[in-house]
Amino acid sequence: MTIYKDARNGRITEEMKKIAEVEGVDPEFVRRGLAAGRIVLLRNLKRADRVKTVAVGEGMLTKVNANIGTSNTLIDVNMEVEKAKIAKKYGADTVMDLSTGGNLDVIRRKIMEAAEPLPLGTVPIYQAFMDVATRKGAGLYMTEDDILNTIEKHLKDGVDFMTLHAALTRDLAAKAVKSDRAEPIVSRGGSILAAWMLEHGKENPLLSNFDYILEMFKEYDAVISLGDSLRPGALEDAHDEYHLSELMVNARLVKRAREAGVQVMLEGPGHVPLDRVVADVKLAKRLTEGAPYYILGPLVTDIAAGYDHIAGAIGGAIAAAHGADFLCYVTPAEHLNLPNPEQVREGVIAFRIAAHAADIVKYPDRAMKVDIEMGRCRGRLDWECMIRLSLDPDKAREIRNQYGPTSIKSCNMCGSLCVFLLLDKWRRKKDEELHAPLA
Amino acid sequence: MTIYKDARNGRITEEMKKIAEVEGVDPEFVRRGLAAGRIVLLRNLKRADRVKTVAVGEGMLTKVNANIGTSNTLIDVNMEVEKAKIAKKYGADTVMDLSTGGNLDVIRRKIMEAAEPLPLGTVPIYQAFMDVATRKGAGLYMTEDDILNTIEKHLKDGVDFMTLHAALTRDLAAKAVKSDRAEPIVSRGGSILAAWMLEHGKENPLLSNFDYILEMFKEYDAVISLGDSLRPGALEDAHDEYHLSELMVNARLVKRAREAGVQVMLEGPGHVPLDRVVADVKLAKRLTEGAPYYILGPLVTDIAAGYDHIAGAIGGAIAAAHGADFLCYVTPAEHLNLPNPEQVREGVIAFRIAAHAADIVKYPDRAMKVDIEMGRCRGRLDWECMIRLSLDPDKAREIRNQYGPTSIKSCNMCGSLCVFLLLDKWRRKKDEELHAPLA
Repeated sequence: MTIYKDARNGRITEEMKKIAEVEGVDPEFVRRGLAAGRIVLLRNLKRADRVKTVAVGEGMLTKVNANIGTSNTLIDVNMEVEKAKIAKKYGADTVMDLSTGGNLDVIRRKIMEAAEPLPLGTVPIYQAFMDVATRKGAGLYMTEDDILNTIEKHLKDGVDFMTLHAALTRDLAAKAVKSDRAEPIVSRGGSILAAWMLEHGKENPLLSNFDYILEMFKEYDAVISLGDSLRPGALEDAHDEYHLSELMVNARLVKRAREAGVQVMLEGPGHVPLDRVVADVKLAKRLTEGAPYYILGPLVTDIAAGYDHIAGAIGGAIAAAHGADFLCYVTPAEHLNLPNPEQVREGVIAFRIAAHAADIVKYPDRAMKVDIEMGRCRGRLDWECMIRLSLDPDKAREIRNQYGPTSIKSCNMCGSLCVFLLLDKWRRKKDEELHAPLA
Repeated sequence: MTIYKDARNGRITEEMKKIAEVEGVDPEFVRRGLAAGRIVLLRNLKRADRVKTVAVGEGMLTKVNANIGTSNTLIDVNMEVEKAKIAKKYGADTVMDLSTGGNLDVIRRKIMEAAEPLPLGTVPIYQAFMDVATRKGAGLYMTEDDILNTIEKHLKDGVDFMTLHAALTRDLAAKAVKSDRAEPIVSRGGSILAAWMLEHGKENPLLSNFDYILEMFKEYDAVISLGDSLRPGALEDAHDEYHLSELMVNARLVKRAREAGVQVMLEGPGHVPLDRVVADVKLAKRLTEGAPYYILGPLVTDIAAGYDHIAGAIGGAIAAAHGADFLCYVTPAEHLNLPNPEQVREGVIAFRIAAHAADIVKYPDRAMKVDIEMGRCRGRLDWECMIRLSLDPDKAREIRNQYGPTSIKSCNMCGSLCVFLLLDKWRRKKDEELHAPLA
């Protein structure tokens, strides 16, 4: 019995009550969302007791994921473990291990441990491909069983959600690769599958074995995250026929997952011009009848390399305010290198800003409290409160003291010209009546 | 004869042709925009030959301003000069000297020189107040003549635009200070004027002398930037009656400036929830019949201290995409300290990202070219091109090499699993026909 089936059957389980408590909503609201496939709970039964309650979808606070992991040119397991801890410390809701270099089983388990109690996500096709590359000299020797076995291994290890690029049909892959897109396929998983399909002349194994995969996920009640292999890697490619064609295949897979009683969410782009971010979210929600929408950015310009966390936070804030549920961070190293731990921190905070700005719009009663308190603390020049309420108190304190510890009541930006000091004499005192409203 | 009057009289001057050339639009379009007060040219006749052509308003690319300057607790002129150079190097369109500590005439002239050929803006009330504070022991001894003389001095020195908080009436100030706003007045200029009005029981000198001020600005054909003393300093205060009341006074002042033949723009907030950013811009544009709108951020959350450049870039991108013309940057030091040069760089780049993301929406033909080229360079793994096209090439190169210089064809994020390498074998070659569109 999966949480989805329980919800469909009208049962409010302990887990649903816990979600309701964490989110500050009604348990019946949670049950309905789960039953409709509009909410998913990111956890694998195998280690449900070790993972905090992170629900994603309609009515849930916007969540933030941090991608970490080795590449095959940069394998530093300790650094990846540190990144997992940094992501957790600075408030990521989930971590995905995207490692592609080194002993992937060992690395995944170490990252999972370091990230606990955060749910962990993976992209199992990476390991399927890389393990075969190591064993047989080339990843393209990968068999369908290699892929399915890797998925099962991740499920057994307790991975909570996995990106599966099941919607990239052989036909779509062949056409995309030969297209005049700026960047035909920018998804690594999608590229692996495209290369495999083109090499072997076979259909996407994740698609042809989708029913079997659904059976596996049902057993662990983990979450499928449907990847978007043909997501735009450049503004120019956003919402072209390749992007939309795959979206429609994914929407059908969402339906199949629900019919099988498996929790499923949809992944989205990528690179999208600012004025099409809302349309992107609305379209994805409409086609999937409200599946939780998990997006990467989106970046609203292609020329922000070195600062793509900012370009992504702009798109992410707009997307989340209009219905996206789960933001995958982008770090300043995107498009240039593997991020270092400090860049992981910057990425997490940038996307927490985006998520929170969106939650203020979606759920003002729940999300605005802290902003209201911050405004009041500022008005009182209560620095300890201001620092405590900041998304990254360490950074706030560091900047407050960046020219040396300061004992002034205001700050160095205005010194004695601080607005609160200038006007203190005339401001309303606590025991004064409020002034009548303006005429 | 001011540029505004020339435009009204149907004359297309050399300056208008230059604006048209710089912006890639038609000279007659520029003339009409100037004549309608929907475009301003940021320059003072006194040094027009030393300043580059920076026009702000409808149909003009979105511009970015960098605020720098000393405070009275941190006076390091060399650092401020360095900030001016950093702002210029990283692509700010204008610099404002907001200095309030040290010899303000000397500092302003040094910053002006370092920032050239960028237009320079100031807030003359700061100097009027601080000079009197130095001379007489308290800024509140400031006279109306002190204020007017300071404005004239700045005009004579060639300052191109000045923030004047003329719309803060004595009545509004008294009510705001006694209000239950989270932060009654967060504008320094506004606070100085409020304190002065409350102390002396007199009307705002910038308002009572507005006609005289207009005469001065007309002589130098410099630009008035109408300050928003009652802008929200917290999301909670956005679009309350104080904020809107001052906006309406400012709209009347815009009209008076136009009638006097003086170029004028309007300043805007501040702190605004994401879903009200568009409304904010539309309201300001409607009330002022399209005056160029110059906004500070806006920040879409109050809890991003240490990263307010990101919170501001989110709001700024949305605002600019919907009609705001000129973004005043916010640095990571906002609300905490005076920024250091590196933070000036981060602020400038964050807001250039916001401005560019907006220009892609407003002017795709002009703005998208570089993004299209970037996408194509990425598809070819042309690193020199990718770095060159990035908004901050130094940063992009630094991150590409952050684990040591790399000679791999891809990057460390994906190593040999790079999508472009994986699919190279099957991709369309230059001499191949394009594949037929998808069925």
